[in-house]
Amino acid sequence: MLKILIINPNTSEHFNQLLQVTADLYSLDSTEFKVVSPKAGPSAIEGVYDEALSVQGTVEIFLEYEPDFDGFIVACFSDPLSVYALREISSKPVIGIAEASIHLACLLGNKFSIVTTNERWGPLLTEAVKKYGVESRCASVRTTNLRVSDFGKEEDASLKKAIETEAYAAVTEDGAEVICLGCAGMSGFDKELQQKLDVPVLDGVVCALKILELFHQYGLTHSKILTYSTPLLKELNNLSPNFAKAYSTKIKK
Amino acid sequence: MLKILIINPNTSEHFNQLLQVTADLYSLDSTEFKVVSPKAGPSAIEGVYDEALSVQGTVEIFLEYEPDFDGFIVACFSDPLSVYALREISSKPVIGIAEASIHLACLLGNKFSIVTTNERWGPLLTEAVKKYGVESRCASVRTTNLRVSDFGKEEDASLKKAIETEAYAAVTEDGAEVICLGCAGMSGFDKELQQKLDVPVLDGVVCALKILELFHQYGLTHSKILTYSTPLLKELNNLSPNFAKAYSTKIKK
Amino acid sequence: MLKILIINPNTSEHFNQLLQVTADLYSLDSTEFKVVSPKAGPSAIEGVYDEALSVQGTVEIFLEYEPDFDGFIVACFSDPLSVYALREISSKPVIGIAEASIHLACLLGNKFSIVTTNERWGPLLTEAVKKYGVESRCASVRTTNLRVSDFGKEEDASLKKAIETEAYAAVTEDGAEVICLGCAGMSGFDKELQQKLDVPVLDGVVCALKILELFHQYGLTHSKILTYSTPLLKELNNLSPNFAKAYSTKIKK
Amino acid sequence: MLKILIINPNTSEHFNQLLQVTADLYSLDSTEFKVVSPKAGPSAIEGVYDEALSVQGTVEIFLEYEPDFDGFIVACFSDPLSVYALREISSKPVIGIAEASIHLACLLGNKFSIVTTNERWGPLLTEAVKKYGVESRCASVRTTNLRVSDFGKEEDASLKKAIETEAYAAVTEDGAEVICLGCAGMSGFDKELQQKLDVPVLDGVVCALKILELFHQYGLTHSKILTYSTPLLKELNNLSPNFAKAYSTKIKK
Amino acid sequence: MLKILIINPNTSEHFNQLLQVTADLYSLDSTEFKVVSPKAGPSAIEGVYDEALSVQGTVEIFLEYEPDFDGFIVACFSDPLSVYALREISSKPVIGIAEASIHLACLLGNKFSIVTTNERWGPLLTEAVKKYGVESRCASVRTTNLRVSDFGKEEDASLKKAIETEAYAAVTEDGAEVICLGCAGMSGFDKELQQKLDVPVLDGVVCALKILELFHQYGLTHSKILTYSTPLLKELNNLSPNFAKAYSTKIKK
Amino acid sequence: MLKILIINPNTSEHFNQLLQVTADLYSLDSTEFKVVSPKAGPSAIEGVYDEALSVQGTVEIFLEYEPDFDGFIVACFSDPLSVYALREISSKPVIGIAEASIHLACLLGNKFSIVTTNERWGPLLTEAVKKYGVESRCASVRTTNLRVSDFGKEEDASLKKAIETEAYAAVTEDGAEVICLGCAGMSGFDKELQQKLDVPVLDGVVCALKILELFHQYGLTHSKILTYSTPLLKELNNLSPNFAKAYSTKIKK
Repeated sequence: MLKILIINPNTSEHFNQLLQVTADLYSLDSTEFKVVSPKAGPSAIEGVYDEALSVQGTVEIFLEYEPDFDGFIVACFSDPLSVYALREISSKPVIGIAEASIHLACLLGNKFSIVTTNERWGPLLTEAVKKYGVESRCASVRTTNLRVSDFGKEEDASLKKAIETEAYAAVTEDGAEVICLGCAGMSGFDKELQQKLDVPVLDGVVCALKILELFHQYGLTHSKILTYSTPLLKELNNLSPNFAKAYSTKIKK
Repeated sequence: MLKILIINPNTSEHFNQLLQVTADLYSLDSTEFKVVSPKAGPSAIEGVYDEALSVQGTVEIFLEYEPDFDGFIVACFSDPLSVYALREISSKPVIGIAEASIHLACLLGNKFSIVTTNERWGPLLTEAVKKYGVESRCASVRTTNLRVSDFGKEEDASLKKAIETEAYAAVTEDGAEVICLGCAGMSGFDKELQQKLDVPVLDGVVCALKILELFHQYGLTHSKILTYSTPLLKELNNLSPNFAKAYSTKIKK
Repeated sequence: MLKILIINPNTSEHFNQLLQVTADLYSLDSTEFKVVSPKAGPSAIEGVYDEALSVQGTVEIFLEYEPDFDGFIVACFSDPLSVYALREISSKPVIGIAEASIHLACLLGNKFSIVTTNERWGPLLTEAVKKYGVESRCASVRTTNLRVSDFGKEEDASLKKAIETEAYAAVTEDGAEVICLGCAGMSGFDKELQQKLDVPVLDGVVCALKILELFHQYGLTHSKILTYSTPLLKELNNLSPNFAKAYSTKIKK
Repeated sequence: MLKILIINPNTSEHFNQLLQVTADLYSLDSTEFKVVSPKAGPSAIEGVYDEALSVQGTVEIFLEYEPDFDGFIVACFSDPLSVYALREISSKPVIGIAEASIHLACLLGNKFSIVTTNERWGPLLTEAVKKYGVESRCASVRTTNLRVSDFGKEEDASLKKAIETEAYAAVTEDGAEVICLGCAGMSGFDKELQQKLDVPVLDGVVCALKILELFHQYGLTHSKILTYSTPLLKELNNLSPNFAKAYSTKIKK
Repeated sequence: MLKILIINPNTSEHFNQLLQVTADLYSLDSTEFKVVSPKAGPSAIEGVYDEALSVQGTVEIFLEYEPDFDGFIVACFSDPLSVYALREISSKPVIGIAEASIHLACLLGNKFSIVTTNERWGPLLTEAVKKYGVESRCASVRTTNLRVSDFGKEEDASLKKAIETEAYAAVTEDGAEVICLGCAGMSGFDKELQQKLDVPVLDGVVCALKILELFHQYGLTHSKILTYSTPLLKELNNLSPNFAKAYSTKIKK
Repeated sequence: MLKILIINPNTSEHFNQLLQVTADLYSLDSTEFKVVSPKAGPSAIEGVYDEALSVQGTVEIFLEYEPDFDGFIVACFSDPLSVYALREISSKPVIGIAEASIHLACLLGNKFSIVTTNERWGPLLTEAVKKYGVESRCASVRTTNLRVSDFGKEEDASLKKAIETEAYAAVTEDGAEVICLGCAGMSGFDKELQQKLDVPVLDGVVCALKILELFHQYGLTHSKILTYSTPLLKELNNLSPNFAKAYSTKIKK
């Protein structure tokens, strides 16, 4: 039995439902999961300011559930700071949906492209790809000018059309052989687009979920030395004492 | 039900047994697998000449079994040419053990190191890492001066010691946070070493196997456009006609 | 008249005093400045978790003072997320102490090294340097195993010795021609070390302050298109309404 | 007297004739040469699968002639595996036509482009250029959609036109200052195109031939340590015993 | 009091006047400056040959004035050799206008573009950006086909139009968020263009001037170890003995 | 008949003799050559200042001889500016000894190292290698602390020993498989060192000479578009009118 916590770092109930549907569809029978959102934060993450407002709430909800789960997904394609923060304070695997889909994409084709929402994500995701180290495998990051809040309306057809247009351009103009859907709000759009374009299309939520199952089956969690080592105890001011419990109380070597 | 063919591209029966044990241990109940070797080829792959002698036999055994299996592992850490050749002629996923472990390593720590056999693999695997595009994530490629044929003797202790020595150096001197075992012959050495070093240690055979299961569950196979598109029919001389069956007979666009 | 707000993103009063002394020493007569800390947050930033806990408080204090100041320093060497968040919501220049010192270092010598505190900053600052794009100009990131909370004690001699040891090694072994002090807590240590090593030594706080004065004299602020464009209005949950005032209310184009 | 063996790794007699004509035209009086093809293999190399089928035959023909020649050309622009395999088993220089022309191109202009056949060579030759390490000198790899088997027909005009179109675009749109002809089948097309475009145009076959003459006059052969060191003896199964003669029988150090 | 020597390395009186106007406008009250040109050299620097003809005269004029000034600008955007030569023979800061503007640009936006004169500067400035190490921050180098000698005519409108056209394309097509004016002859065009494009536009002359003031206020000069160490005494033939005075007479260590 | 001008850009008669001996030894019977030095300039080039003093004299001597020769070597390992300047003003091939040896080294082994004189060449030649684009092929640049003026004394043994020591370290510690001698003064030391180290050792003077012969036999010269296009006519002040004759008088397109 594997228990996965899927953290939607924005407060949109629609996103929670999307993640629920996707995880229902792809999780193994032996996997249990729960989707949660921060109690405080923005309703969408459309840039770094939004991310900044979502971080503390994301950490807080993680701390509340961490003891009862075996693996964690931060379901935002922005390469959020919280992925790295949570790895420091847990010995259980934490995974972001961008890095999960990008590394799987590298195993499926020579080059991948990301199709995402507003144009700010062009430079931001280009930077994330560089951070992951796979810039030479990335054909392009293409933006659609969709707002994150566009997702969740009844009518998905125009969203899908906008995404398909850019994905098609990535394949025919940029040399992409694989497409990564660059927003959690696009969860569930993968297979229809894959059929239309005839190239692999990756939903990062599925990728992260399956990677956590893989890690569980193989007995893996992230390294706890150096980059993700547990931070040492320090004084916190005007923050819930729960935050302090995550620190290591080992004497500094 | 998923049927995986594990191709050991050398002719060592010991390697076949190792792969069998590892796959038995980690494959899901719903996965069937078979380990095969080429009928002709070298007993070990210790460089590019050996690889050159193994390629045709690897393709031949693949062609024989391809219709009856759903996914394929080429179980040599050398980033063999055959992985790319086989992707051209099949629409079912083919995966090498080096790329599988390297991309998973990137999800487990900031930097990984590879510990492998003779010193020629230093430059060769450095080049492979660069080809995969993750050179900035690679702390080092360390060699042990072991011969591939050293694996399979009764006594594994000295092999393990040699590997541990280099892996320890990778962690303490090079900044590695994850270790990739750089030879199929090291299959099964992962968990003991992981316990000793307290960092994730990856057996590429397990990684490839689990990635194929993941692809199966998510309905993925490699892209068939551009790099891995099916080659067009051409005349073959003095080769088994089976080789020609793999060509596409579509008219060139 | 230029009014600069220096934000110390941790809550250490000692750091505030240090920043006050440094700014007093180097600011032009025509520059006014104020040092502030978040009301809530960690007493030191020793990794990503600490940063995650400091972000919201940093944004909050910024929003409170933004209208009354002309330029802003985020005085933490960690390349904090907040620098980028604040640039989105202000049209006045915001600068981090790491990027300020690193780009000036490139004008003073062929290669620079960073000397910082605990070993986690090795990979983290290496990544930051890569993000700034100047990895080929960086000779090394060296860590001292000092804790951030070590700074501010009466006795600075042992701290200075630890820093000097690594800086000397950077110069003699790594090819560094310039040293960047990699923690705000080292503010004020620059000139003594410069004299000892006979290479330029940069205090990021001074660098950021002088860059803001330069921008003011030349009439510059950061670009407001694409990466740092103002985020669009969205609903916030359980956050102070002040945070929402930063959004643009322009209709999405 | 220098004796060069030119190995055409496909089995096309037309290619053999082309190579013969080119070598006749450019070899020094003191150079003797012979053009050979593998006894078994594909009639054209249009991708990795074709290459996989050509490798064993290429090694075999090499082993047959190696004692009687002083230098070796593998006349395929695909950066074939066999170049590296043959270097391991010979102390006489072995050279591929891609690397020969690419490195000379770097001495003739700031950036070069490669004009080649079908679109698969776009990613494959981009990867080869990266392997050679000169990606920053490469303006583009342009494909013509020609088949390798198109070469050798009576009428060359349409082939030349297709190549000229892409070469012209490389010069006027991509910043190329030198053109490398990216297929052995284009041998002999260099000077006419050079005259039309008024930039250097390189035929890799000539480049490799002249490099071997240069090496001979200067007393050079490839390094035999590390990457190209002689492989150690091992058991071969169901392969001609000739293949085993290439191994070193030195005791492993 | 800071005394800055602005060296215009060409002999155009118009350029001298431009530099005078710009420095008048932006220098602090406490800064004195003088604009000089070499006594011998080309009237414009439009490539490497022109630069080669300007170097000796630039060094000569520098040697004449060096004792009486505190900081030096080489006012040519070509990353001239003389910047590095002069740093070797002086312990006072020497700065080029290209590197000054490029590093400031990195603090103002995610990516910058350079807009310059004739097309040769496309490859030359791309190379300079790579030398500074910030190639990943450079969106593009765009050329206008203007001649350097076009600057200085009565009518600036058509020059400005040509520059604006390329700068606009850099912003809208290449992702530039900051523009660097890529020729000293464009000095003074910054603010008008900045207003039109609504992104920061940098005049390298101002940037270099302000950086020298910053260095002065912070007590910085370039590193004198390794790359910019003083050259050792050697015999000069048929050159003014002034050139020899710059050598160090220390015994070689 | 091919007539090569070998320009020693320093004024050392010893260097002229060395170049004469080397060219005598390796030039083909059909090659004539002449060694010349500038009339004015430094007796050794040990850094950028020395190079700055040598440039004008190098151009001058080139202009004097250019009409009577077919190819040109600039015999200094510093990647001198003059190579690029001379290419602009001639349609006959001009080659530097560094780039000639470095590109040939890439054809002889996986990685090369440069062994050179004083420590300033460490950063300078690292930068040159990056400019040529082959940084990933360079194992190291090693310096010997020799002065350029040390070459030419009766006793070569200690020089050779210093070079051998670093070359040996490059091979055994840095992974070099080929050695490039990084100073024209080392001309003639190649074969003895090659025998001792058992790896290829390249004398850049021989490499440049043989590359010019190769270009001659194949009918090649450098590209004359874009980077090396002929500069347009402009006014020169206080320089010999010979310098102006090199300009193109074509109307600007």
